[in-house]
Amino acid sequence: MDDGLPAAAGNGLLDRRTLFRRGLVFAGAAAGTAASLRGALAEGRRDDPWSLVPGATTAAVQSPSRFESRVVRTLSNPDGEPRTQHARTPHHLLNGTFTPNRLHFTILHGGIPDIDPERHRFVIHGLVRQPLEFTVDALLRYPMVSRMAFLECGGNSAPLFSREPIQATVQALHGLVSCAEWTGVPLSALLEEAGVDAKAKWMIAEGADAPAVSRSVPLKKGWDDAMIALYQNGERIMPGNGYPMRLLLPGYEGNMNIKYLRRIKLVEAPGMSYYESRNYSPLLPDGRAYQFFFLQEVKSFITFPSFGLSLQGPGLYEISGIAYSGNGRIARVMVSADGGHSWGEAALQEPVLSKAFTRFRMPWRWDGAPAVLQSRAWDEAGNVQPTRAQFVAERGQSKLVPPVTAFPNQHFNSITSWSVTAAGEVRHVYA
Amino acid sequence: MDDGLPAAAGNGLLDRRTLFRRGLVFAGAAAGTAASLRGALAEGRRDDPWSLVPGATTAAVQSPSRFESRVVRTLSNPDGEPRTQHARTPHHLLNGTFTPNRLHFTILHGGIPDIDPERHRFVIHGLVRQPLEFTVDALLRYPMVSRMAFLECGGNSAPLFSREPIQATVQALHGLVSCAEWTGVPLSALLEEAGVDAKAKWMIAEGADAPAVSRSVPLKKGWDDAMIALYQNGERIMPGNGYPMRLLLPGYEGNMNIKYLRRIKLVEAPGMSYYESRNYSPLLPDGRAYQFFFLQEVKSFITFPSFGLSLQGPGLYEISGIAYSGNGRIARVMVSADGGHSWGEAALQEPVLSKAFTRFRMPWRWDGAPAVLQSRAWDEAGNVQPTRAQFVAERGQSKLVPPVTAFPNQHFNSITSWSVTAAGEVRHVYA
Repeated sequence: MDDGLPAAAGNGLLDRRTLFRRGLVFAGAAAGTAASLRGALAEGRRDDPWSLVPGATTAAVQSPSRFESRVVRTLSNPDGEPRTQHARTPHHLLNGTFTPNRLHFTILHGGIPDIDPERHRFVIHGLVRQPLEFTVDALLRYPMVSRMAFLECGGNSAPLFSREPIQATVQALHGLVSCAEWTGVPLSALLEEAGVDAKAKWMIAEGADAPAVSRSVPLKKGWDDAMIALYQNGERIMPGNGYPMRLLLPGYEGNMNIKYLRRIKLVEAPGMSYYESRNYSPLLPDGRAYQFFFLQEVKSFITFPSFGLSLQGPGLYEISGIAYSGNGRIARVMVSADGGHSWGEAALQEPVLSKAFTRFRMPWRWDGAPAVLQSRAWDEAGNVQPTRAQFVAERGQSKLVPPVTAFPNQHFNSITSWSVTAAGEVRHVYA
Repeated sequence: MDDGLPAAAGNGLLDRRTLFRRGLVFAGAAAGTAASLRGALAEGRRDDPWSLVPGATTAAVQSPSRFESRVVRTLSNPDGEPRTQHARTPHHLLNGTFTPNRLHFTILHGGIPDIDPERHRFVIHGLVRQPLEFTVDALLRYPMVSRMAFLECGGNSAPLFSREPIQATVQALHGLVSCAEWTGVPLSALLEEAGVDAKAKWMIAEGADAPAVSRSVPLKKGWDDAMIALYQNGERIMPGNGYPMRLLLPGYEGNMNIKYLRRIKLVEAPGMSYYESRNYSPLLPDGRAYQFFFLQEVKSFITFPSFGLSLQGPGLYEISGIAYSGNGRIARVMVSADGGHSWGEAALQEPVLSKAFTRFRMPWRWDGAPAVLQSRAWDEAGNVQPTRAQFVAERGQSKLVPPVTAFPNQHFNSITSWSVTAAGEVRHVYA
């Protein structure tokens, strides 16, 4: 297998920068067919059946090919029983740097409210000089900004608190994070207009859904980069993601980004809602409550190869995945093909944006022997994704498989490891 | 109306940079309700009806609110008669910097082929050392890149060749351009692998649709930034946009970005296909043919306000639109509210990406008098969007309303002007 290609690290990781400047780099993928191709081309290729008949009429709204019908979200509560519904993004079937709207993850505690945008109102009140009420049309007249931002449930990746690695896809393990371009009004402009009392230190944001989901947010975040978002990836926000408007708090726990936003109240102290006093306050091993920790920390995972996908024999492949941090830009992603013994630096897709998905890529020549693939990310603030041993020592793990909520199940951000067998199958392992 | 807000240019254009640092900037939008709000808040706001009942169950694939049903593409041939079909993007109803897949424009000369990705083949042949054949799965193993890129039909904006301004929406006038993130394999990597003969100067690209649409592309573009695109905005390419793969030539005439790509043949001279010898070769006023001009030049248009939308009385608004250039990044967009007498520089949404949509924004205090709004863009190569007088002098205009194809109808890129009446209605004018 020594074809002189430049190595980036052990067990076949290759240097992408020089790879693109060399010929025949992925002959492994095409050579099998190339030999017979001269014959086929000499005979002349025949038209495929779809080239011989008129095609279909396009619709006013287009949708994916029928051959992509497996590219959907998985549902935890498809019959809408009176409990929370989760819909998870199929990251192992996607590529690029953000999530199409139809596949953006959603968590709903009381279903999707059918909000008439003409009748919806949003109010800013409490410790302000002038309470304000906005219609959707009024907000649409304000100066807007657009930004890519990931949203991640605080409970994303909770299956990795399990003591034994659960065999499941990236979608099942990490599908409660997505990334979109959000367009809306900077909250700071509305706070300026309302005039905030110096005593105000927190904001309570509340949604118009049946459970009136509410969370307390430090006012500092409101002045920093919070947004009243009205558009998602160019079109109006999806109903499952907060139509007609939501609070966007880039880098903060998904649940705080209140959907169906109907009011923000300026207050002196947090409101201690269910979601901050109970649901997002699990106990740590030392007995303290894990409370008021909002940031989604630096994280990465490999989407290809990953559980449920397989390799078709030895040869060249591209390892690819997603990295992000609530602290800002991703600075570096390292990839290992030998279970962490050696690491090579992955290519990051430009532009690398703050608090957004960054796609990383690393070419790999698989020799057909068992291998363990890992990725590890650093952010611009200098934070590094912890190893599983480091993470579990501090945050604990479940006694049960699958995990129960008696132990912490929030903000998992350590390394995900995929074991490739000699048969090309991919298993989830702790390494 | 003199409230001391900083002016950017005549007739109410405001300086956005300082606007964001001042309180009460858009009071005009909220004050009407603020007075009654104290009473409403004192009584306590009542729940809206959707807050009182459980919401809907989310589906495996989510879609927009029923209240957004007008946000669709318009179809030129909805019954699929045996002629070309156009589906246009509703830019006047969108915001942000790219186009969601369901609304990306499509032009189909023989309908949408129903291609089985397992059976589709893509071939590189002709003046190469080694002809190559690829399955979709083989291409998916190659090193990939992602990039935002606009695609624009060479005939987009053709209604503006009319001698009289046609009263129609941005969707009808400029709806044959969209922008997406495309992910795929750099063509240069495949050309390296095939080994290109020094005699080759052009590539003929051909699709697998019924008319086998083919175009000749300078080989230089193939080495530069051409891509075999497999993903569109994170998911596999839409059937109307070329599933399972298309040629992407950033900044070049849409028709050349061959969909359903089945082969690229390296040749010495262009193939003179129908689309380059006839359809995209109209006559100029001086009798020369407008042929082999591929670049989509610098262009911008205002999406709000625009025809079909209206202003609800005097006050503050945000003027917003799209700019792009096949030559690279947008350097500057100037906006006028007085028919071109004075111009203020619009804010450009970061990141400003090469050959992609750039959203521009400019706050405007409308005094209720008639006004003419215009935008004009510059690109990093120093090109400027021409005035209509400049453009028509060089390129001609139609004798008829609506235009016929006897006169040039390609690559229109001059300024679009919107007249706002005292009633707040928007008309299309030549100014």
